[in-house]
Order: sequence, then C-alpha cells, then structure tokens
Amino acid sequence: MEPKKKLINSADSCVDEALCGLVRASGGLSLLKGHRVVLRSDPDNLRGKVALLSGGGSGHEPAHGGYVGAGMLSAAVAGGVFASPPPASVLAAILSLHSAGASGVLLIVKNYTGDRLNFGLAAEQARNHGVAVDMVIVAEDCAFDQPSKAGRRGLCGTIFIHKVNNSNSDVGLDYRCTLGVSLSPCSVPGCLPSFELPPGDMELGLGIHGEAGIKRSKVASADEVVKTMMDHMTNPDSQSHLPLKSGDSVVVCVNNLGALSCLELAVVTRAAIVCLESRGVVVARVMSGSFMTSLEMAGVSLTLMRADQETLRLFDAKTSAPAWPNLSSQCVSGRGYITDPQAVSTRPQDDAHSEGPLSPVMRKALEKVCSTLLEKQEELNSLDRAGGDGDCGNTHAQAARAVQEWLQDHVVPGCPGRLLSVLAGLVQEKMGGSSGALYSLFLTAAAGHVTEGRSNAAAWASAVHAGTQAMRRYGGADPGDRTMVRVVVVDAAASGAESTRNLTARAGRASYVAAERVTLPDPGAVAVAAILRAVLESLEGKK
Amino acid sequence: MEPKKKLINSADSCVDEALCGLVRASGGLSLLKGHRVVLRSDPDNLRGKVALLSGGGSGHEPAHGGYVGAGMLSAAVAGGVFASPPPASVLAAILSLHSAGASGVLLIVKNYTGDRLNFGLAAEQARNHGVAVDMVIVAEDCAFDQPSKAGRRGLCGTIFIHKVNNSNSDVGLDYRCTLGVSLSPCSVPGCLPSFELPPGDMELGLGIHGEAGIKRSKVASADEVVKTMMDHMTNPDSQSHLPLKSGDSVVVCVNNLGALSCLELAVVTRAAIVCLESRGVVVARVMSGSFMTSLEMAGVSLTLMRADQETLRLFDAKTSAPAWPNLSSQCVSGRGYITDPQAVSTRPQDDAHSEGPLSPVMRKALEKVCSTLLEKQEELNSLDRAGGDGDCGNTHAQAARAVQEWLQDHVVPGCPGRLLSVLAGLVQEKMGGSSGALYSLFLTAAAGHVTEGRSNAAAWASAVHAGTQAMRRYGGADPGDRTMVRVVVVDAAASGAESTRNLTARAGRASYVAAERVTLPDPGAVAVAAILRAVLESLEGKK
Repeated sequence: MEPKKKLINSADSCVDEALCGLVRASGGLSLLKGHRVVLRSDPDNLRGKVALLSGGGSGHEPAHGGYVGAGMLSAAVAGGVFASPPPASVLAAILSLHSAGASGVLLIVKNYTGDRLNFGLAAEQARNHGVAVDMVIVAEDCAFDQPSKAGRRGLCGTIFIHKVNNSNSDVGLDYRCTLGVSLSPCSVPGCLPSFELPPGDMELGLGIHGEAGIKRSKVASADEVVKTMMDHMTNPDSQSHLPLKSGDSVVVCVNNLGALSCLELAVVTRAAIVCLESRGVVVARVMSGSFMTSLEMAGVSLTLMRADQETLRLFDAKTSAPAWPNLSSQCVSGRGYITDPQAVSTRPQDDAHSEGPLSPVMRKALEKVCSTLLEKQEELNSLDRAGGDGDCGNTHAQAARAVQEWLQDHVVPGCPGRLLSVLAGLVQEKMGGSSGALYSLFLTAAAGHVTEGRSNAAAWASAVHAGTQAMRRYGGADPGDRTMVRVVVVDAAASGAESTRNLTARAGRASYVAAERVTLPDPGAVAVAAILRAVLESLEGKK
Repeated sequence: MEPKKKLINSADSCVDEALCGLVRASGGLSLLKGHRVVLRSDPDNLRGKVALLSGGGSGHEPAHGGYVGAGMLSAAVAGGVFASPPPASVLAAILSLHSAGASGVLLIVKNYTGDRLNFGLAAEQARNHGVAVDMVIVAEDCAFDQPSKAGRRGLCGTIFIHKVNNSNSDVGLDYRCTLGVSLSPCSVPGCLPSFELPPGDMELGLGIHGEAGIKRSKVASADEVVKTMMDHMTNPDSQSHLPLKSGDSVVVCVNNLGALSCLELAVVTRAAIVCLESRGVVVARVMSGSFMTSLEMAGVSLTLMRADQETLRLFDAKTSAPAWPNLSSQCVSGRGYITDPQAVSTRPQDDAHSEGPLSPVMRKALEKVCSTLLEKQEELNSLDRAGGDGDCGNTHAQAARAVQEWLQDHVVPGCPGRLLSVLAGLVQEKMGGSSGALYSLFLTAAAGHVTEGRSNAAAWASAVHAGTQAMRRYGGADPGDRTMVRVVVVDAAASGAESTRNLTARAGRASYVAAERVTLPDPGAVAVAAILRAVLESLEGKK
C-alpha cells in the first residue's frame, strides 16, 4: 500500500508553502522570517493591548493562521503536520508581539501534551525576558464520559475562543463542547492513513488527528447522526457534557473536517438547528464551513457554545481574519425564512379565456396536429432509436394527448397569443426534456406577437421569427445544427413578410427538405414538419 | 459495487434540506415557498434596481444560494443534484423580484443546454408578464482548444460575474477563464461515481459534473500541475485561451472542487501566485476556498479574471452574501509579507557570562550529573523498554554530552539563574521530546528565582517550587501521576523552607521512594533521582 497522492510539492515543504499561500493571499498577514509564524501585518495596532497568540500542529487549516487579523488572533504559530510547534518559534512570536507594543500576550493552546509543553516553555522563557504572558488551555472535546488524566482534547471550539476571547475569558467546561464524526480516515502527507475505517462505516468522537473515538457503526442518516451527537454532548451522565436545557441559547459551529461535500455539510447544518430547536434550545448563530480540519477526513464536528449577550457581541464583532465567515448577526431561531410566492398565475392553461372568430379554425388545426402526432408515434420512436433514446414519438404523443384533454374541457381563446401560451404551458409540463423546453420556448416567445386584434400574416411572421430566435438563443443552435430548429428557421421564419398560407406551405415543404438532406432524418425535425403540415392541411381544408 | 454512503437523510430530500440549512444559518436569506429558490430576505432594497438571478443544478454548493445577498445575487434557483432547475421555479423567482420592485431582472446562467433552455423559457414567460428580463451566459471553461458547438462550459468564473456584474457586464471570452484538475471522481447521492479515476491519477479539464476532461496523467507536483494549467489557459493556439502578457493584472480564484484538503489548497494557492508572477503578471487579488464545488471531488480549479480598476472596485465592494470570503483589498503582488524577528537572543547558551564564587561548585555538580547519566544510559534504556520506546537513556545521554561540550567552551556563570537558563536551552535543543520540554520547563521557570545575590536555601526552594509548578501546569501532571514530576514534587519542593543540603538529601531519597512504590520504576523518575543524587554527592564531596 502506497501513501495517498496529494496535490503538494513534497511532504517536507507543504507546511511552509501552505503558510506562504495563506499569507500571500491575505493582505492583512505576514510571515515571521525563519519561523512558521503568521503575524498581523499591522502590528502597530497592538500597542497597549493584550495580544492573542495561538497555534499548534498543521493539517487543521485554516486553523490557526486563518484566524489572524484585527478582532481575532494577533499571531499564530504552526508546527509540522499534526506536530506541535517548537518553543523557539512560539517564543519568537511572543517577542515580536511584545516588541510591537502589546501590553501582554495571551496564549490560546489546545489541550495536547506537546502544545502545552512547548507553549508553556516559551511562556516561561518570555517571562524571563520580562514579557507578561498568560495561557488558556482549550479542552472542550466531549467524546469521553470519563476523560483520561490528560484531560479533554482541544478541538474546533478553539475558534470560538479566538473570536470571543477577552481579558475575562473563561474556558470553563460548562461553556462549550465539541463532538466529531467521521466517514473516512486521513493521512499525513507521505504516510499511510492514520487508521482504517471500512467504507460505509463511521466513527464517533474522533480527535482531529484521527485519534480513536468512542463508537463505530454503519453510516446512519444525517438526522440520526446529529441526534446521537447531541444526545452524547448533553448527556448528564458524562463528565464532559454541556448542560443544556430548554430556553438556553447557543452558538453552533458545524465544521467540515476536510472532505465532506458542501451539500452534506448543509444537510447536517439543518439537522443541527432542527434538533436543538426540538429540545427548546434557542439557536442564536450558526457558522458552517471548514474551520478546523483534519486534512482530508470526510466528517463533521459540532461545537456548541453558550450564548449570552456579551458573547454574542464579541462573536458578531467585525474581524479582518481571512478564515472568518461572512455571518449575519440575526438570531437563527425565531426568524421567518419562508417567503410566499406571488399570486400571479404562471399556468396559462388554467386561465379563463373567451372565444373569438379565430377559435374554430385554431381548434381544428390543433386537433389535426394531435391526431397526426399520435399516428406518427411509432415512426418517430423508430427514427429516434437510430441516434437517441427511442422515445421521441412517445414524448410527442404525451404532448398531443395533453392538448386533446385540454381541448375537451376548455374553449379555445380567440387571441392566438393566449392559445400559444396555453400550449407552451402544456408542453412544458407534460412533454418535459429538452424538446418540451424548446417547443415551449418557441410558443412562449411567439405568443406576444399575435393578438386578437393583430393576427395578420406579418404578425404571424414576426411571432415565428421571435420563437425561432428564442430557440436559437437559448438552445444554442444555429440553422444547420439542429434539424428541429432548422426546419422552422429555413422554411418558416426566414422572411418576415410571408403570408400565413405561404408560411404553412413552406413549412409543409420542410419535411421534404429535411428528408432530402440527411440520409435518416432527425425525428424532431420530422415531428416539426408533421406539425406544420397538419396546420397547413387543416387551413387548406377550411378554405 | 454500492453507491457511496453520504451524510444525508435521503437522495430525494438532500437538496431541499441543504437549501434549508443554508437559509436558516444565514440571516439575510429566505426560501420561496414551494420552490427551490433562495431569496434575499430584504427584497425591499431591490426597488428600482436591476435584480440579479442565477442558479443551476445542485451539488455545487455554496453555489448559487450562498452568493445571495446585498452586493451580489438577489436570488438563486436550484435544481436537483447536477440537474437544471424547472422553468416554473425560475419564473417564480423572477416574478418575486419583479413584485419586490426591481426595475428588471438579469439572469446569470452557466452555459449548459438544460440551464439555457429552462432559464430562457422562464425569461420569455416573464416577458409575457411584462417583466424586463435579460440573460448573460457564462462560458469561461478553457479546457478545449476547439470548443464544440455547445460552446465553453460555465464553471467557477460564474462567481466573479455574481460579484462584479453591472449593467455594462461583458462576459466576453477575453476576460476570464477557468481550468480544473481532479484526483478523484464524485458521485451523485444514491448513484455510483460518474467516472473512474485510479488512485494516483489525475484528470485535467474536467467539468463540474465530472464531464470528461482533456488529459489523464499521474499526479504531478503542485507546482507542475499549476504550471501545466497556466500554460494551457494562456496558450494562444487554443481558441478558448485567456490572452495574458507580462504587466497584465488578474484576480485569481483557487477553488476547492470539494474534497481537497485545505492544506493542499493553500499549497496550490501559493503555486498559482508564484507561477503568475514568474510570468510578469500582477496578481491583484486571490480568493481561495470552496466556491463552486462538484460534490466530493478531490480537485481544484483555477479561474483568472482580468482586473482593471473598475473590476477591482466591484470585486472589493462589501457584500452580505454568506459564501463570499473575508478578503483584503490589498494588491497581492508587490506587498511585503515577511517580517524580521526581534534581534533578542533566545539562546542563553550563546550569551557571554562572568564567573562568580559559586561557579566552581556548580561546574563540579554538573560534571558529576553528566557522568552519572552517561553511566546509567543502558539501565535507563532497559527500564524504558518495559513501557516506552526504549530510548530514555539515549536522550539523557544526548543531553549530558551537550552539557559536557558546553562546559568545555564556556565559563559557568556565577549567577545560578543564568546557568539554569543555559541548561534549559541545551536540553530543549539537544534532548527534544516531552522529557526535554519538561526539563527545560523546570529549569526555565526555576531560573528567575535564583540570582548571584540571592541563592540561599529559600531562593532555591522557591526556584524548585516554581519549576515544579510549571511542569505540573503545562505538563498536566499532578504528584502521583508522573513519577518524573513526583520525584521533584514529593521529595524536593514540598517544603519551601528546606535548606539546599536538605533538599538534595531528600532528593537523594527520591529514587528509593520511587523504587519502593512501583515494581519497576519509571525510567524518567530514575533519571531525575540520579541527577539529584549526583548533585548531592557532588556537594557532599565539596565539603
């Protein structure tokens, strides 16, 4: 088994190059020379303030460098992939912030032994340099009912600390919790996957480096998975649960662990909101995206943070950090999010119409078209089997029957444009597919050009022209490409001054033209020609 | 072969649930009842303006619903996964915008037959309802040198149109282009993957639904892949290239097609910037993230857009659209992004020191500690093999040799705190790992408490206390957990008033305590005990 191929240059260079990519793309960031440290490019703005420094192993992008900016971190230190950063780099970052005039430096450290030791060592060294340094340990994992001595792991909840931290920051157990679920392992560049997980299985409670979780099972539905996670996160029997009762207010982070599709993430986001609200919890804000990843792990973590007014004020505050999303400051729960559509009828086939002098002629022509198409059903299917899916006759027959049914129950409007709109609606609904859309396009675009008061030859010619133009424009076809368009274009719409009789006569010739130029005619072209010939014959019979 | 398990509830419901997730999480959005339409929740702000409507098949999240908001789209219509939305929903969206007071509606449609027809049909229907509607077709794919009659596909460049569109919008071929590369296929929910791609292979020029690209090859390095893409995108022999010459200015979008890790995406981002700059192109802005995905396809697309002043003004303008990233408006090229670290020495072992009365005593003690640790190398390794990786003796020996070397070239400072800092630096650098960090932590935290003028028993006691506290705090260990901490805590630091002699005498007893209480002592504890005994013996010998 070989390590998975990744889109990098080398396992050795990927962390430095990724940091470079982040910093170069983000106007507000810079790199500390000789270290894997991302700094605000405007350090002067830190003068007299407490600077915030975080960091940890790489592989969790956009954490932590993406959270550097006004309103969030002052700097972030990166280690190798899933490896704690060296104390020398942490110290260099602290000293940079100190020399920029920061009154002190607060380290925000995820609860991993390596990070605690390395950030701790740098903190002690910085104190010996006269810098005021303090540290908060983030440990909000709630996978384990009885956490080991090493304590709960620091996960995506760290991002909340980056955002809402202030000098009174309280990282107590009761304020936030995170639980993850994954459908796949991930692999450190150049290495085999950190663990095995058969396709179709999922693991609950994994760490962000692929550390073992608490339970494996078959992949369940998104709603069930979210319910299981919420039950676990709020289970009072667990030492690491978040006490949550009806009426409590929370901020929710739905975090893509790496390779979950955005579609799935949005489904999980809905499930999380619905699940919390079903328990009476007020969802104050939701952030959904890739915030603290585990390389290409296909999974999601949920983080809940209790939301009081001050927390929300800090959460909503502006930041220039490039990885912070464009969030609204409206409360999610209680907001109306359904808009009623306009009452305008969009089905002309339902409208009431009044008859006119042209109504009998048009009814007769339509009846002839329908019977012709039904007669030709098998012929069209047969032609279509040569180059298509063999259902051209069926789709046309569907449309014909729909028109026949409509004719039984409705008067034919005296306004030709109205009738064309009705037909457009019927074929769009009953015929479907590209041919339904093309016929509907033709009829809809033509409809506006023929009215009861204006239905002479010139009006019909411009109607056909408009219909053809719409087919060409939206269908992307030109005369010579698609025979269905060709028939109309070449034979019907070419001259805007033709008479209706002329028009149908020329159209009658259309099937001949089509049949002459190709060995086996396009079934759509044959259908169009048959329709036009039926109209012609109907009009001739009337004379 | 079974369809891939996804974190959804059902293939049928996933699109509606994903739209619900997006809208509920985003304060500025609402859903049009009965349709898959995302609308701005503040439609009144459209009064008298041209509304922008886009959309297309689902599976490309956050497109297009995520781009609805002030400054971007007014609404977005979604179809099923990889399926065009029905004209009725497009029409409902248009009529909603019209009735909100929009002076007209501009449809932004990716160049796919289904989308062209369905949006086109709705446009024609809306015109018959008296709405001023226009349409732009986005077709910026540059995979094919000679695009087919259907034309170039619309890809991630559509997002740029959403952002910089204005009434004079020009979607000409010369302004933007996109090319994708993928390392994996993707699969529509409930279906098998749309194509096969063996692990380790990549395909260039794929469409966002997995339509065939132009070339398959082994996965190359990120720099090579980006160079190949840029060469192809700007190749004058291709009908669909973007003419680009030195001095031209571009906006770049580095788009995660779904499942690429954020680490890889950042590496590709760097490669794209560097590649363009190497050709003299000015990179004005970069956006890097998941903007137009193909479900869980592991790949990336690059989009280039020519950037004039007006384009940049529109690109930089504020928007409330939830999927738009938090971008800086600084020009990427030409910006300094490297900060020099502070000149403060962070390696106390390099500093010049002056001797004092205590120097000879401390040198002798150190020499004794080093020789003791070297003698015990194999014993410690052997103990470590029982529960660790068997190198405890080696790491201590490394530290001992580093101290011996340092002693050869340096005077021992008269200030004990200075010496502790030197030792902290040496063990941190040469010993490494958790034990190096713990020793270094102890020494660094202790250093501040003993100076040349204050090195009596009380000072040493508080130094040891501070060191132990640091080990406990950052190491997360309490007396009783880790014998390495235990030895110091129980036997050395317990009483702050002990004399130095007492201190070392008690420490001498430590190994006995440790050995007595566990069947096989912890090698770290044995090492600490040996160090303290060596100091004691050295001090006793001196007397």
